[in-house]
Amino acid sequence: MREKLPFSKEDVLKWTKDYPTPFYVYDEEGIRDCVRKLYEAFSWNEGFTEHFAVKATPTPGILRVLKEFGCGTDCASTAELIMSERTGITGHKIMFSSNETRIDEYQEALRLGAIINLDDITQIEQLERAGEIPDTICCRYNPGRFENTNGIMGHAYDSKFGMTFEQLKEAYRILKEKGVKHFGIHSMVASCSLDNNYYPSLARELFRIALDFKKELDINVEFIDLAGGIGIPYRPGEETIDIAAIGAGVHEAYKEIVEPNGMKIRLVTEMGRYITGPYGYLITTVIGEKHIYKDYVGVDATACNLMRPAIYGAYHHIRVLGKENAPAEVKVDVCGSLCENNDKFAVDRELPKTELGDLIVIEDAGAHGHSMGYNYNGKMRSAEFLMHKDKSLTMIRRAQTIEDYFATLDIDKEFNR
Amino acid sequence: MREKLPFSKEDVLKWTKDYPTPFYVYDEEGIRDCVRKLYEAFSWNEGFTEHFAVKATPTPGILRVLKEFGCGTDCASTAELIMSERTGITGHKIMFSSNETRIDEYQEALRLGAIINLDDITQIEQLERAGEIPDTICCRYNPGRFENTNGIMGHAYDSKFGMTFEQLKEAYRILKEKGVKHFGIHSMVASCSLDNNYYPSLARELFRIALDFKKELDINVEFIDLAGGIGIPYRPGEETIDIAAIGAGVHEAYKEIVEPNGMKIRLVTEMGRYITGPYGYLITTVIGEKHIYKDYVGVDATACNLMRPAIYGAYHHIRVLGKENAPAEVKVDVCGSLCENNDKFAVDRELPKTELGDLIVIEDAGAHGHSMGYNYNGKMRSAEFLMHKDKSLTMIRRAQTIEDYFATLDIDKEFNR
Repeated sequence: MREKLPFSKEDVLKWTKDYPTPFYVYDEEGIRDCVRKLYEAFSWNEGFTEHFAVKATPTPGILRVLKEFGCGTDCASTAELIMSERTGITGHKIMFSSNETRIDEYQEALRLGAIINLDDITQIEQLERAGEIPDTICCRYNPGRFENTNGIMGHAYDSKFGMTFEQLKEAYRILKEKGVKHFGIHSMVASCSLDNNYYPSLARELFRIALDFKKELDINVEFIDLAGGIGIPYRPGEETIDIAAIGAGVHEAYKEIVEPNGMKIRLVTEMGRYITGPYGYLITTVIGEKHIYKDYVGVDATACNLMRPAIYGAYHHIRVLGKENAPAEVKVDVCGSLCENNDKFAVDRELPKTELGDLIVIEDAGAHGHSMGYNYNGKMRSAEFLMHKDKSLTMIRRAQTIEDYFATLDIDKEFNR
Repeated sequence: MREKLPFSKEDVLKWTKDYPTPFYVYDEEGIRDCVRKLYEAFSWNEGFTEHFAVKATPTPGILRVLKEFGCGTDCASTAELIMSERTGITGHKIMFSSNETRIDEYQEALRLGAIINLDDITQIEQLERAGEIPDTICCRYNPGRFENTNGIMGHAYDSKFGMTFEQLKEAYRILKEKGVKHFGIHSMVASCSLDNNYYPSLARELFRIALDFKKELDINVEFIDLAGGIGIPYRPGEETIDIAAIGAGVHEAYKEIVEPNGMKIRLVTEMGRYITGPYGYLITTVIGEKHIYKDYVGVDATACNLMRPAIYGAYHHIRVLGKENAPAEVKVDVCGSLCENNDKFAVDRELPKTELGDLIVIEDAGAHGHSMGYNYNGKMRSAEFLMHKDKSLTMIRRAQTIEDYFATLDIDKEFNR
């Protein structure tokens, strides 16, 4: 959660005159500021590129803002590739980081000239089934165990992603034989980490591997992809990471391992949550309350708009507009209307007392929020808006209609008889 | 899981010539047989109606089959109401069992003449905001604790649904004053129960309440809605429920409480899972295998096609076509391609050894399967087919296209510049 909302109740009341709740609002300035600081933190590294994880917020209106800063995309499916292309991001600006990849998906990535990040050694053959292996290839490394400089251990051996060290080495050997000229290494061993040492520790390990491969395989690893894994503070009291310190920490490792060995490595990140997470807000209206064995507040958003609490039990901070400073007088479950008992944005949450019509803001919904939406119970997915500096909105996704929902169905077959 | 698949590898190979995996197949005969037996089990009860829980399988091609047996629908949103209408199921054939209901949703239900099932006492006012309270109303009861005749306890007090007994009584008193003539009671205190005593126990409790309301409020409860909650055997060794015994058990309770007191009560069920769950199959192809710290089989379906394992850790039985009787030689995680480590249809599952191209059947996917699908990572939702007696297929939902996925986006704004 951010300390303060970037809009007021009055702003939202203006918006709701034109657009029914629930809807998403993204704070454009917040996103721009975040990306600016990320690029500053890595400005020491020539060619540094953030490849935004499209899955976090697959909306062209967001991608276009990121493109202005030189960001690329991290794609994992044909639809994400085509969205990237149609937003004007192509070629090596696309990192295709997929797993269990279909041949037609590789073909799409090849057509766009994307950098392909192979998840497994078996994917060399799979890629060959799709076409010619390109000059530039990245491989995904899974260290199994990963200890960062703070002694915090990630358990990547439970993760389906990436190759073991032996497989990685073998993959590069084979790929070199097959004519690949430019190599990268990708690894992601954390999710939603708030540890400023995570990236530096990971970079250190990957720099060492690059050095090893230079010596043993005579391969110059030209770029290292630190992937995602940087978290955001969802709960009150959690601290946001210090991106400048992280950039400096990676720089330290670079000066220690890369520079003295005459190497030059371009850094890549594939952040998603960090870039858009804190800057997306789900706005919803209180439409009911009930008092049975527990107390409930009903809102017009559902898990169809934001699934993270239902699927992960994730915490999202909630503010009642106009009551930001009111005391928390009630303890309630904040519920959507799905016929599923897990359709709750909060359980036993202490909130100011709400009334019908109150506007509620569900925070930190900018990543894996709308994108993880579904249509369960026939609930429509909501619109998304980009909020500009002057609090005006641009619609970047319209609300789904029932006809959209029916589009793949032979709905009128019986009705028209 | 059913003992045998209703189709062979040869049938599936024929289908995959025309349609790429993954796709859903529903066994029409299986569904018909199930509904037939349900109606037989309750044939002693005049006017018994199964209102199919649309959320389980919101596909008109399925609803049309059920309509032939006189089934109605259980709807909880505008889209489900309109799908019901456009499939030719309207009026009292619709039970509108919603919660945290928007005014416009009530208006749609009123327009269609649906039976409205109020989830909470506060919903009387909400319904009045939407229009006139209809002659016929149902209210949802949440007993808090519920002990069935086997001593198995449901913990409904943790559930957001329904009213307490005191609220229920008060609601009926108010509704009677407001001119309601025909009353029903709804309750659902189990989910996926394989206990043949569940419905009889619930019916007994609701019959007693109906008797109480007759004496104390001079209200004739005309129908009782036992809702859903009947489960299916997902795991090997679990036994399917005995619907004839369940119908007879409810009949016993009826003869004991309803008949001697000169009452006449029509029974309603809102089954979903029981009707379609075992008869829906997700067909997918093996497209990868990997051996890192664990062994993995990759398939071309993902949690976008079937989310239950990812969201609930649910078990779905898996058969490899052509290897139904082969020994289970390997222990693998069966994975989809999402960039989420929970995109696994099975964890540590013992299976016959698979090869690329093998066809895999994920069973018991007919309910809350396709319907709980999403588009995470830009993965498209699959087609659905009704399989007839002769193993021919009718497409009842086409596969989603990328243009469907882009429909709500201003995708070409930048691209066309």
